[in-house]
Amino acid sequence: MVVIMENNASDEQIELVKKQLEDFGFQIHESRGVQKTILGAIGVQPDFDTRKVSILDGVSDVYRVTNPYKLANRSFKEDDTIIKMKDVELGGNKIHIMAGPCSIESEDQIYRLAEVVAKSGMKILRGGAFKPRSSPYSFQGLGEEGLKLIRKAADEFGLLVITEVMQIDQIELIYKYTDIFQVGARNMQNFALIKELGNIDKPIMLKRGLSAQIEEWLMSAEYILYNGNKDVILCERGIRTFEKYTRNTFDLSAIPVVHKKSHLPIIADPSHATGYRDQVPPMARAAVAAGADGLMLEIHHDPANAKSDGPQALLPETYLKLVEELRIIAKAIGREL
Amino acid sequence: MVVIMENNASDEQIELVKKQLEDFGFQIHESRGVQKTILGAIGVQPDFDTRKVSILDGVSDVYRVTNPYKLANRSFKEDDTIIKMKDVELGGNKIHIMAGPCSIESEDQIYRLAEVVAKSGMKILRGGAFKPRSSPYSFQGLGEEGLKLIRKAADEFGLLVITEVMQIDQIELIYKYTDIFQVGARNMQNFALIKELGNIDKPIMLKRGLSAQIEEWLMSAEYILYNGNKDVILCERGIRTFEKYTRNTFDLSAIPVVHKKSHLPIIADPSHATGYRDQVPPMARAAVAAGADGLMLEIHHDPANAKSDGPQALLPETYLKLVEELRIIAKAIGREL
Amino acid sequence: MVVIMENNASDEQIELVKKQLEDFGFQIHESRGVQKTILGAIGVQPDFDTRKVSILDGVSDVYRVTNPYKLANRSFKEDDTIIKMKDVELGGNKIHIMAGPCSIESEDQIYRLAEVVAKSGMKILRGGAFKPRSSPYSFQGLGEEGLKLIRKAADEFGLLVITEVMQIDQIELIYKYTDIFQVGARNMQNFALIKELGNIDKPIMLKRGLSAQIEEWLMSAEYILYNGNKDVILCERGIRTFEKYTRNTFDLSAIPVVHKKSHLPIIADPSHATGYRDQVPPMARAAVAAGADGLMLEIHHDPANAKSDGPQALLPETYLKLVEELRIIAKAIGREL
Amino acid sequence: MVVIMENNASDEQIELVKKQLEDFGFQIHESRGVQKTILGAIGVQPDFDTRKVSILDGVSDVYRVTNPYKLANRSFKEDDTIIKMKDVELGGNKIHIMAGPCSIESEDQIYRLAEVVAKSGMKILRGGAFKPRSSPYSFQGLGEEGLKLIRKAADEFGLLVITEVMQIDQIELIYKYTDIFQVGARNMQNFALIKELGNIDKPIMLKRGLSAQIEEWLMSAEYILYNGNKDVILCERGIRTFEKYTRNTFDLSAIPVVHKKSHLPIIADPSHATGYRDQVPPMARAAVAAGADGLMLEIHHDPANAKSDGPQALLPETYLKLVEELRIIAKAIGREL
Repeated sequence: MVVIMENNASDEQIELVKKQLEDFGFQIHESRGVQKTILGAIGVQPDFDTRKVSILDGVSDVYRVTNPYKLANRSFKEDDTIIKMKDVELGGNKIHIMAGPCSIESEDQIYRLAEVVAKSGMKILRGGAFKPRSSPYSFQGLGEEGLKLIRKAADEFGLLVITEVMQIDQIELIYKYTDIFQVGARNMQNFALIKELGNIDKPIMLKRGLSAQIEEWLMSAEYILYNGNKDVILCERGIRTFEKYTRNTFDLSAIPVVHKKSHLPIIADPSHATGYRDQVPPMARAAVAAGADGLMLEIHHDPANAKSDGPQALLPETYLKLVEELRIIAKAIGREL
Repeated sequence: MVVIMENNASDEQIELVKKQLEDFGFQIHESRGVQKTILGAIGVQPDFDTRKVSILDGVSDVYRVTNPYKLANRSFKEDDTIIKMKDVELGGNKIHIMAGPCSIESEDQIYRLAEVVAKSGMKILRGGAFKPRSSPYSFQGLGEEGLKLIRKAADEFGLLVITEVMQIDQIELIYKYTDIFQVGARNMQNFALIKELGNIDKPIMLKRGLSAQIEEWLMSAEYILYNGNKDVILCERGIRTFEKYTRNTFDLSAIPVVHKKSHLPIIADPSHATGYRDQVPPMARAAVAAGADGLMLEIHHDPANAKSDGPQALLPETYLKLVEELRIIAKAIGREL
Repeated sequence: MVVIMENNASDEQIELVKKQLEDFGFQIHESRGVQKTILGAIGVQPDFDTRKVSILDGVSDVYRVTNPYKLANRSFKEDDTIIKMKDVELGGNKIHIMAGPCSIESEDQIYRLAEVVAKSGMKILRGGAFKPRSSPYSFQGLGEEGLKLIRKAADEFGLLVITEVMQIDQIELIYKYTDIFQVGARNMQNFALIKELGNIDKPIMLKRGLSAQIEEWLMSAEYILYNGNKDVILCERGIRTFEKYTRNTFDLSAIPVVHKKSHLPIIADPSHATGYRDQVPPMARAAVAAGADGLMLEIHHDPANAKSDGPQALLPETYLKLVEELRIIAKAIGREL
Repeated sequence: MVVIMENNASDEQIELVKKQLEDFGFQIHESRGVQKTILGAIGVQPDFDTRKVSILDGVSDVYRVTNPYKLANRSFKEDDTIIKMKDVELGGNKIHIMAGPCSIESEDQIYRLAEVVAKSGMKILRGGAFKPRSSPYSFQGLGEEGLKLIRKAADEFGLLVITEVMQIDQIELIYKYTDIFQVGARNMQNFALIKELGNIDKPIMLKRGLSAQIEEWLMSAEYILYNGNKDVILCERGIRTFEKYTRNTFDLSAIPVVHKKSHLPIIADPSHATGYRDQVPPMARAAVAAGADGLMLEIHHDPANAKSDGPQALLPETYLKLVEELRIIAKAIGREL
C-alpha cells in the first residue's frame, strides 16, 4: 500500500499515520519530497480496507499495490491452466465449443441437438435444467428430469455435459449428472455458492457478472481456487452498457486482458452477449480472432417455440456452417478448432 | 404488446405475424396507416419474451405494454403498504432509522451501539452476523454467536433487529433471532433465496442491486410477494456509475419513482451509497428531503478498528446530532421522525 | 507518481525504469521491500501520461499522486469562490435559484415568466436562445431575437440573465445580452469553446457532461480558470445510468464532493436531471438539503405547448409553492434562500 | 407513436388525450381491449417529444414507432454507401486501414510513418495537427505546420490524408490539406460543428461518443447528411464502462448492428479502444472478423517519446506483421484487405 500525504500535512499528522499503519501490522518506508511525503506500507494483507487510511487526517490518497487475487494471478502461476476432461483439454491450443439449447425441454429435443454437436466435431453439450429467471412467472426448468435427459443424450454421442447450478442444495444432485458446473452471471458474487463449489472435484465455469469488473470476476474465481478447486473456466457473456440495440455489450477485450492477468482459460458466449441470432456469427468469429479458448453457443431446432431465449439460438444448419468458418479463423491465428 | 411492422412489410408477412401471435395465445387488433401497420396483441403474459416476435420477418419494433410486475405495482394496490412490527409502522408518515454497526463484533460493541440507537429515539438495530465479502480473505462475520449478541442487546433496549441472510440454509437459524431479514445488493437476483423468503412471515428488506434498474428491483420484490410474503421494504444503497470520488452513486430519484410505481415503502442507506463518513450527513438530509420512509445508518464507537466498513460509520455523537437535524427537515416536509 | 515494480522485476529492469523516469524529468525515491520495489517519481507534470511508464518491462502499476487540476483545487485556494454580480453573491450562505423557460419563445412568454421569478424573490432569469438539439429536425431557438427578449424582460424586473452559448462565434453576440454564460453538458469537453470562455470577463456556468467524472468536470473548469476567468459555477444536471424510469440520474453526492475537492460554487438542476415535472420538487428539496449553492429550475405557463422540454417545466404556481418549502429546508441547515 | 392508456383510464381522459394528439397534428387509430385502450398516433414528426403525451392524465406509456434518423437509415437507402476517394472505395468488399501517428510531430516522423503505411499496401495516412486534450497543460498539436507536413508526406507516397477538426473556424484551413475530416468522440454531439461539416464536399469520419448509444451516433450522422454531405464514415473507438483494466470497452457488436440499421460504412479503432499496444493486435483481428469496413491504427517509431498516446502505438514492424495476419482473416470471411 502506498500512502500519499497532503502537501500541507504536518509532521504530527505524518507520525500519527505511520503509527496507525504500524498498528495495522505494516512496515513503513518513508520518502519525503519537497512537496509531498509518500509512505510505503509493506506487508501482505489482501483484504485490507484502504479507506481506513484514506480517512486519516493529512492523507491525500491511498493505493493498494498488490492485486487482491493471488491464486488466480498469473504472477502466482505462470503456465496456462489446462483443464482435462476425458479427451478434452480446455485452455490449450485447441479451441472448444460448448453447444446446445438454453433449456432442456424434452428427450427428443436434447437428443437431436446432441447429435448436431457431435456432428460438428465438438465435445461438450450445454443445457439448463434449473433456470434463473428474472420473473417468477417464467419457465423455471425441468429440474432432475432435465439432468437425466441431457446425461443420456450426451452419453449416446460421447459428449461431456455442462449445466447450471443456482443454489447450494442442488450441488449434490447435479454432481451425479454433469461434467462441468456452470455459475450464471447473476450468481458471480453469490459467495456462499461459489465457496461451496470450491470443494467439488469437477470444473466450474464462472460467468462474468452483468456489471462486473475483471478484477471482481477474478476475485470470485479466487474464492473457488482458495477452497481447493483448481479447475475454473471463465466465461465472458457481455456486460451491461447504455446501448439498447444489443442485449449486452460483448467485451472481447476481456480475452487478452484475462490472458495477461491470469492463467485461467477464458471462453466467450456470443449468444447471451448479443441476444439476437443474426449477431451471433460475426461475434463468434470475433471472439475466436480475439483469442478465446472456447465458445458457448445456443442452438435449437425450433427457436420460435423454445421455452427460453429462442431469439438468440442458432438453427443447426447455421451452427454447422459457422463452425466451419471458425475453423479457418482459428487456423489463421495459429490455433485449432 | 404492440407490434410495429416495417414500412415495406408485405401482406403475407403481416398475416404470418398475426398467425404467430394467435399461436402464442394473443388476440389481435390491427391498425393500418398509410405508412405503417400496427398490431395490438391483447392478452396477459407477463413473462412473454418479446424477442420472439421482434425476429419475425417484416417486424420493425415490439413494445411490451404492461409492467412485468403486478403485485408490487401501485395500479394493483393503490394504498401504501405499511409494515407493522410491535410499535413501529414503516411506510406511514413517520420516518424510521435503522442504525447500528456494519458487523456485530462483540457483546460490548453491540450493547453500546444499541444504547445509542435507543437514546436517539429510534426503534431498529442493525448489525451483520453473516457478511458477504468480495474477498475470501476478509472477515466473514461472527455467525450465530453474533445473532445472539444483537438479539440480547436489542431486547435490553426494546429495539427490533434487522440482519442479513445470505443463503437458504441460514433462514431457519436467523429467523429465531431477527425481526427483519435483510437481502444484500449482490443477492437481489439470487432468485433461489428470494423465492424462499416469500414463505417467511417476517418482513424482508431488499437492497437494490449494484447496477439494477428499478424495474428489475421491483421484479425481485415480486418474487417475494408472489410466494406469499407481503411485507417487503425496498432499500436504495447506491448504484455503480463511472464516478470514482464516491463508492457508489446514491440514486435519490429512486425514492419518488418507487413511490409512484409501487405501494411498497422505500428507505435509503447513505452509508453504503457514499462509503465515506463525511458524505453521510448531507446525503442523509437529502434522502429525508426526497421523501424516504426511513434510513439505514452505520455507526461505530471506534471506526478505525471496525472489522468492516469503518470508514463509512458515523461516530455516536455525529449520529445523534444528525438525527436532530433530520427531525427539522422531516417536519419541513410535513413528516415526523 | 508512484511506480510499483513486479515482484520478480530484475535489477536491470529497475535501473532502466529509473533512467527512463529521469529522462522524463522526474527525481527518484527508491524503496525496496522484501517482495516489491516502489519508485517515487517526484516532479510536477500535471499532463504526464502514466501509461508511458506502465508499459515498461517489469512495471506492475503506476499511480498519479497529484490531482490533474490545480486552479480548481481547494488545496490551491482554500476559501470558497464567491461570484458577485450586482446584488447577487453566488457561493456564499445564500442559495440562489435561476428560473425560467427552457427556450425563449415570445415576448409575452418570457415577460410573464420573468414576473414569476421576481415574485418568488429570485434574481436570475434563465432562457435559451441557441438550443443544442440531438435532432436536426427540432426547434433550434430564436437566436438574437431571443436574446433581446430575455434581456428586456430581465431588465424590467431587475433580474440577471443566464443563457447558453454553443459555439465560439456566438460569444461576442451573447456577451451583449447576458450576465452569465451557460455551457451545456454536451459541450463540457468542447475544449475549443471553453478555452475561449476563459478570456471573458463574465461568469461561466459549466454543466457536468452526461457521463463525466467529477475529475473530468473540474479539468474542464481548469481550462476556463487557466485562461484567466476565475468565475466558474458548476452545475450538476444528472448523469447517464442504466435507469430508464428517469431521464438521467441526479448525482447529489457530487455536491459534498465538489465542496470538498474544489472552492467553486455548485448548483443543481433537477429539471434536466429527472425530466419529469412531478419528480422536480422532491429532488429540488433534496438538492438544497445536500448543500447546493443554488438551483436551476425550468418553469412555463403552458408546458403542453412549450417548444422544448415542456414535460419537465413546473407551472408558476407549483414553482412559487416549492420556493417556500425550500426556504424552510434551507433554514433547517443554517442557510438562507 | 403508440399511446397506452392506464387500465382504469376514464372515457373522458381518453377523449382528452385523443383531442390533444389531434392538436399536435396526429391522426388517431383507437383500439379498445378488455383491459387496455391503445391509441395509434399516425403522422411523421421525427422530433416530437413523447413526454408531452406521457404526462397527460390516464396515459400509462408512450412509444415512438419510427426511428428518429431517416437519411442514415437502411430502410431509407438499401444499398451500402461506398465512399470513393481516388483509388480507394471505402464501404465495399475491400477493407482499408488508416494508419499513422496520434500527433504529427516533425517532418521526419510523419515521412517515416507514411513510408510504413505505403509499404503495408494501405492508402490512408492519419495524423493529428489539432488535438483535443482533457488537460490545458497537454501538447495541443502543431497546427497548420502539422497539416503541411502530413500533406507533403502523403503526397510523397500517394496516400490520402485524414486529420481531425475541432472547431468551425478550422474547417477552411484543414480543407486545404486533408482528404477526410475526422470528428473526435468528444465532439460527436457538438451540433454546431457537425452541422457545418454537412456543407463540405469531402468525407467526414464521425467517431462514436464515449457513452453514446448507436442511435445517438446515427442521429449525429443524420445532422451531416441532412445538411447535404452524403459521405459519412462511422468509427467505433470504444465506450466507457466500469472496466478499469482497459482504457475503454471496444464495442464490436456495434459493427453488425450498424450494418443492419444503416447503409453507412463503419470502421474500428482498436488503438483508442484499448489504450495499450499489446491489446491492439487481438482486437484488430477481432474487428476484421466482426465485419469492420476498415481499421484505424496508431503507429510510431519511438512510442516512448511520442507527444501523445505513445502507449497505444504499434511499432512499424508489429504493424506490418499484423497487416499480414489481418489479410488471412479477411480472406477467411470472404473479404479482401
